[in-house]
Amino acid sequence: MISEKMYVLGSKQSCIREIFEFGLKRKQQVGEENVFDYSLGNPSIPTHKQVDNTITALIQTKNSLMLHGYTPAGGDKRAREAIAEDLNERYGMKLNADNLLLTCGAAAAVISSMKAIAVKDSEVIVIAPYFPEYTMYAESSGMKLVTVPADTKAFQIRFDELEKRINSHTQAVIVNSPNNPSGAVYSRETIYRLGKLLERKGMEYGHAIYIIADEPYRELVYDGTEVTFIPKLYANTIVCYSYSKSMSLPGERIGYVCVTDEAEDSRELLLAISGAARSMGHVCAPSTMQQMLTHCANLRPDVEAYDRNRRTLYDALAEYGYRCVMPKGAFYLFVEAPGGNAKEFAARAMRKDLLVVPGNEFGCPGHFRLSTCVSHDMIKRSLPIFRELAEEA
Amino acid sequence: MISEKMYVLGSKQSCIREIFEFGLKRKQQVGEENVFDYSLGNPSIPTHKQVDNTITALIQTKNSLMLHGYTPAGGDKRAREAIAEDLNERYGMKLNADNLLLTCGAAAAVISSMKAIAVKDSEVIVIAPYFPEYTMYAESSGMKLVTVPADTKAFQIRFDELEKRINSHTQAVIVNSPNNPSGAVYSRETIYRLGKLLERKGMEYGHAIYIIADEPYRELVYDGTEVTFIPKLYANTIVCYSYSKSMSLPGERIGYVCVTDEAEDSRELLLAISGAARSMGHVCAPSTMQQMLTHCANLRPDVEAYDRNRRTLYDALAEYGYRCVMPKGAFYLFVEAPGGNAKEFAARAMRKDLLVVPGNEFGCPGHFRLSTCVSHDMIKRSLPIFRELAEEA
Repeated sequence: MISEKMYVLGSKQSCIREIFEFGLKRKQQVGEENVFDYSLGNPSIPTHKQVDNTITALIQTKNSLMLHGYTPAGGDKRAREAIAEDLNERYGMKLNADNLLLTCGAAAAVISSMKAIAVKDSEVIVIAPYFPEYTMYAESSGMKLVTVPADTKAFQIRFDELEKRINSHTQAVIVNSPNNPSGAVYSRETIYRLGKLLERKGMEYGHAIYIIADEPYRELVYDGTEVTFIPKLYANTIVCYSYSKSMSLPGERIGYVCVTDEAEDSRELLLAISGAARSMGHVCAPSTMQQMLTHCANLRPDVEAYDRNRRTLYDALAEYGYRCVMPKGAFYLFVEAPGGNAKEFAARAMRKDLLVVPGNEFGCPGHFRLSTCVSHDMIKRSLPIFRELAEEA
Repeated sequence: MISEKMYVLGSKQSCIREIFEFGLKRKQQVGEENVFDYSLGNPSIPTHKQVDNTITALIQTKNSLMLHGYTPAGGDKRAREAIAEDLNERYGMKLNADNLLLTCGAAAAVISSMKAIAVKDSEVIVIAPYFPEYTMYAESSGMKLVTVPADTKAFQIRFDELEKRINSHTQAVIVNSPNNPSGAVYSRETIYRLGKLLERKGMEYGHAIYIIADEPYRELVYDGTEVTFIPKLYANTIVCYSYSKSMSLPGERIGYVCVTDEAEDSRELLLAISGAARSMGHVCAPSTMQQMLTHCANLRPDVEAYDRNRRTLYDALAEYGYRCVMPKGAFYLFVEAPGGNAKEFAARAMRKDLLVVPGNEFGCPGHFRLSTCVSHDMIKRSLPIFRELAEEA
């Protein structure tokens, strides 16, 4: 007998993956250059030379048993120290190794965090548009997912709608800024207001309401945009970070959870997150990647290529009459579907081998997502199709 | 509010870890050379030169976006093909890439497998002595753990005791051969008999009873011992493998699940395992390690050093009057505690800075475990203490 739930989870691909795989097949049929695939959020900038050089040097110089051996479950102490130092320097924090747990990427970090605070009848709030896997994370950790409708004007937070959804069961709000799919970065004011609201509600209900800050895109910002380090403004924050996007290492599965000493039950919370990870088969994050961070934690991505793609696409789409909030971060554009139905638009685009992701699974059925981590050349060649699609609408 | 269960899991270390950390502290107090730490099963043979050379070559020659990028959730196809080919060659199987899912080590593989077959009131059987984390895996996957008492004569299986414990809720039996902690390797006859029993019981209850074969020690065998590839004799087997021990890469978290086409509901089972992994934050196994396997899947460990340690320890302990079944695999000795109480013996040993793991958590309170993945020199220097402890008993 097989678990029906697990079977469904394993056989139902994400809509994004389905579109991507359709694209791979079409490329074989009509030629790579005739398919315009904007589906996947897969970094298109190679990792830093320093990352690769560090790994090579570690292999050549470090004791093999130390390099490839088990680390403590929470991660190598020197790697955690290096990350803490970097965060302290950038954000004026007072973190040390004990505030950090290294994880196999952000997915594991977020699920572990949710599981650590899931008690009876717990609820977790997400703000549309949101990463579709949150639905599964909530189910997996035994929490009820509550969604706040999108602020489609600016993709900040509709506080009236959020407040209505907070109750005594609310354990956390997931904040994903820079946002996938909208590219919006929550302003300092938004974060401040959110913190004040959660503080007030936490007092009212007699327990902390945590922010789970899912931040794989923290360093991918444009136009000098500031990304607020949320624990600075709201102590009860669980930062979940991944090096997947900022270092272009999505396959290597390396990230962390960070909780400051100022968070409520900080020690207990970190232990519970570590216990949750253990219950899901976590032993340690990949050790060579951990050691690499000891030397590379302070690297920042060069986002020039993503920025150029963002501008080219945004400008062209605006010219053709599409409506879109200019993204300040991540590597996506989230565009209003002409006609208002993103699925219909995506289907029309697909018939012209232009692959976009309808916003339905992101909780925003009137928008579609374009990844800007693609080649600039593909963007330029795809523009006439965007124009046609706008004219047909 | 924090999940009490996760907090306990995160704060309660394994007994093995506790002993190991005590050892680290003692080394600082009395000097490294005066502590004889037999606690951890951490490989002491460096990985193959070819593994490190392959990683270096991949970094130098392969497209960085491909090397460090996402792979399909089940793993890179060429890596899975290389593993399938190697298994086909060694065991005369007809596996292909689709029979394999790459995982972050055996822990994730075993929990995912258990979760995939956990339905209402499911039970999983383990045979003492067993790896203590199985208790947690069962709880995490929502299965009841049922234990079969040890055959302390040969550490094979007490079939009468096993059969009594199989009922309509039994979904799987975990087989860990070569065994941690006993070092026993189940004979071909044992596996054959187990298969026949499970076949009969499966018919009786109208559903497959799977073997979950947890085999990180498969290649670590001595005296030319054969390790039966269980799916050859019993189709309903889920092989969970890790390269942690055979390639000395425990920190890198790379392993796999293998299910043959002949297993009942083979496709559905693999999809459910993949769904279970996803529900625990699995995105893909570390990508560089996956690519490494494309070139190194056929490597075998050189177990000469472990073998030498095994013989030296076994011979000396036998001379001092200890009783122990000579291990045929893994890197442990599982010794009868003089006096019959392993906790008491371990405490006495600890006072002499000799660190052994009592068998209680392995379901065998009359035995203690010694890891032989230590330096030969430490073994030699520790022998007088073993002698003293025997004489005192």
